[in-house]
Amino acid sequence: MMKRIAVDLAAMGKAARGASRELAKLTTDQKNAALQAIADEIEAQAEMVLAQNALDIEDGRAKGLSDALLDRLLLTEKRMAGLAADTRNVATLSDPVGAEIEGRVLPNGIRLSRRRTPIGVLGVIYEARPNVTIDIATLSLKTGNAVILRGGSETLRSNLALVQVIQTALANQRIPRDAVQYIANPDRALVTELLHLDAYVDMIIPRGGAGLHKLCREQSTIPVITGGLGICHLYVEPGADVEGALNVIENSKVQRPSVCNALDTLLVHVDIASSFLPKLAARLNPHGVKFYADGPAFTILYTQEKTTVIEARPEDFDQEWLSLTLSVRLVDNLDEAITHIQTHGTGHSDGILTNDWKHATRFVNEIDSAAVFVNASTRFNDGGQFGLGAEVAVSTQKLHARGPMGLEALTTYKWVVYGDMHVRA
Amino acid sequence: MMKRIAVDLAAMGKAARGASRELAKLTTDQKNAALQAIADEIEAQAEMVLAQNALDIEDGRAKGLSDALLDRLLLTEKRMAGLAADTRNVATLSDPVGAEIEGRVLPNGIRLSRRRTPIGVLGVIYEARPNVTIDIATLSLKTGNAVILRGGSETLRSNLALVQVIQTALANQRIPRDAVQYIANPDRALVTELLHLDAYVDMIIPRGGAGLHKLCREQSTIPVITGGLGICHLYVEPGADVEGALNVIENSKVQRPSVCNALDTLLVHVDIASSFLPKLAARLNPHGVKFYADGPAFTILYTQEKTTVIEARPEDFDQEWLSLTLSVRLVDNLDEAITHIQTHGTGHSDGILTNDWKHATRFVNEIDSAAVFVNASTRFNDGGQFGLGAEVAVSTQKLHARGPMGLEALTTYKWVVYGDMHVRA
Repeated sequence: MMKRIAVDLAAMGKAARGASRELAKLTTDQKNAALQAIADEIEAQAEMVLAQNALDIEDGRAKGLSDALLDRLLLTEKRMAGLAADTRNVATLSDPVGAEIEGRVLPNGIRLSRRRTPIGVLGVIYEARPNVTIDIATLSLKTGNAVILRGGSETLRSNLALVQVIQTALANQRIPRDAVQYIANPDRALVTELLHLDAYVDMIIPRGGAGLHKLCREQSTIPVITGGLGICHLYVEPGADVEGALNVIENSKVQRPSVCNALDTLLVHVDIASSFLPKLAARLNPHGVKFYADGPAFTILYTQEKTTVIEARPEDFDQEWLSLTLSVRLVDNLDEAITHIQTHGTGHSDGILTNDWKHATRFVNEIDSAAVFVNASTRFNDGGQFGLGAEVAVSTQKLHARGPMGLEALTTYKWVVYGDMHVRA
Repeated sequence: MMKRIAVDLAAMGKAARGASRELAKLTTDQKNAALQAIADEIEAQAEMVLAQNALDIEDGRAKGLSDALLDRLLLTEKRMAGLAADTRNVATLSDPVGAEIEGRVLPNGIRLSRRRTPIGVLGVIYEARPNVTIDIATLSLKTGNAVILRGGSETLRSNLALVQVIQTALANQRIPRDAVQYIANPDRALVTELLHLDAYVDMIIPRGGAGLHKLCREQSTIPVITGGLGICHLYVEPGADVEGALNVIENSKVQRPSVCNALDTLLVHVDIASSFLPKLAARLNPHGVKFYADGPAFTILYTQEKTTVIEARPEDFDQEWLSLTLSVRLVDNLDEAITHIQTHGTGHSDGILTNDWKHATRFVNEIDSAAVFVNASTRFNDGGQFGLGAEVAVSTQKLHARGPMGLEALTTYKWVVYGDMHVRA
């Protein structure tokens, strides 16, 4: 067990605010030079970081963490090289800060513009994955924001080592170390305290499960980007290309079942159920997919070979499975499919598989989700896939940013007014 | 005293969500027709509304409300005509919903776009001004949002009458009445309940003083647009056109001293203090401006004729005056002015009066306020003045919207993905 370190969050906040003012003055070249310096330092201090990570892994093993979780915590020489490469990649991204979003000369001669600026100070709370420390710190730096980090306690030593690496590189570049700070005490009360630090922190980004997002929504006096829960749907109807539909469903469900944009519920038009469901079972059985099917679908799936199917209770359609499980329900028409998604969805990723122009249009217009799909896998709801260059988080709320958040989501704007001693009439 | 009406906020929220889905399907033409119908109905039912307003005014007078407040509550035939005209004006504004913010074909052939959509359900809490009821309801309708309104208790009857007018017009246009609902019970506990209605409400907009904004920030589990507090600064330095600077200061301070973008603190470079402050006193004295001046400024202002000046305590520089009062402080240089604004400002409206290019540039880059001014009055920080067509609120937070919020701030976007049975590699 590590000795707990006393943390003065208000002092950290104040220091972060001060650092953010220095960051806001940096040119893109200066920020990119700092990112290169961080990448170099990650390589130079890899041994130190790996030694600290080994202690985290040792503790984790002693605590009986699962192999899957331990693998998420683990850093290796190869992974350290990956972190350095990721950091250099952030340097290559285009800098959104300084862009003039709109500008014009008003009728009275005033020149008005909206200029993109850093947000200021970010607070980021995340799961036990040391790569997120580098990821968030570098994206914050690129956009001129100071950041206060709070990662999962299982990687405390690794995170502190990585933050030390970053701070060393920053100091060498004459950028305030306080631009990237870490809450070095696993006490959960500090999370609540961070959520109330509205005097210094401008935005909270939780990265983790639904429970963390709920805590932030309920406790924070600072604007929060929430997300974290994706009950995702596909609706397949007569006329859809069957082979294509099976490909999309398979990809949505099995390509990476543990993530939020993986498929949870398949809605099948009743008219194609008897032909489509056997093909679905044949396609998904080899992956070990388990079905929770409503009565009529259960009756069909139950007779298929090598198929694991359980009759669904109503609450099974409110499940985000995060595993190789799929709810299946038959619907009579598009209206019923839309109503099901409106009732059970979380506004994350929902799609239709169809060859009907009118139905596709209605689905896109009426389904109010962060990403709406026609004839494509829900797995595309991702910053990388959407070409954003980086993904800070995925938002399912509707303010500020929705869906995958790129660098722009870490910026705000200010109105800039140039006059010639203008007064308001 | 009116009998208190039982309010089922969850039922209102659910109804609002249902209505919002219908609103999202309306075309711009249909929404504009509804706005015209509301304007017609305002005219047709003016007598009924005025009768209800008269009862509010009678109650208000009995409670001993000030004449200024009573005037804010009062509706007249002329003001009713104004409300109808304002509603017709909203119909003429361009509809932001449906715009494609960005769109492209990805390398894999998927067509991706971001489409502007309504936010869904808004919750708006506002002061006792019946015109705000029409204002917010029509702007919400224009952007396809349902809204739950909660106005000041002093205008409960007037607001209920106006909402009845709106609902009648909506029903005549076959739009759900629940698109615009009003919390018809002045119990304050309902405000707190509204702030926790995250199952149905997507965004809270408080319109009122700093106390209301603080309550919302602390209590709400729904994203809130906060603002409401503006400690505004101007910094005047050597080389600035003196006559122009006096015009801008006078306009910023006295044109409408009770509002949030009015000037609160003037920072004067020490080198021009002895010449500038006497001119300032001569300019502002006829308006009855009272000064709170720091030591060196006090010494100069104290000797001016007909000048009311009090020696400022440190806390006087943290005051939003909302009256004909002005804090004055001398500073040695631009750095000291910037530091003062960073320490005492609220990020609302701050400006520099100068003829120095480098100083203007530094001020604009380093002052992180919603609106930053060079040689112009702080009073320009306003949706109308900035050409937004409408002003929903003024935000001093940095997420979603900053500064004056136009119709766009009442929208979000969704990602729309059109594929040809694409799967993620």
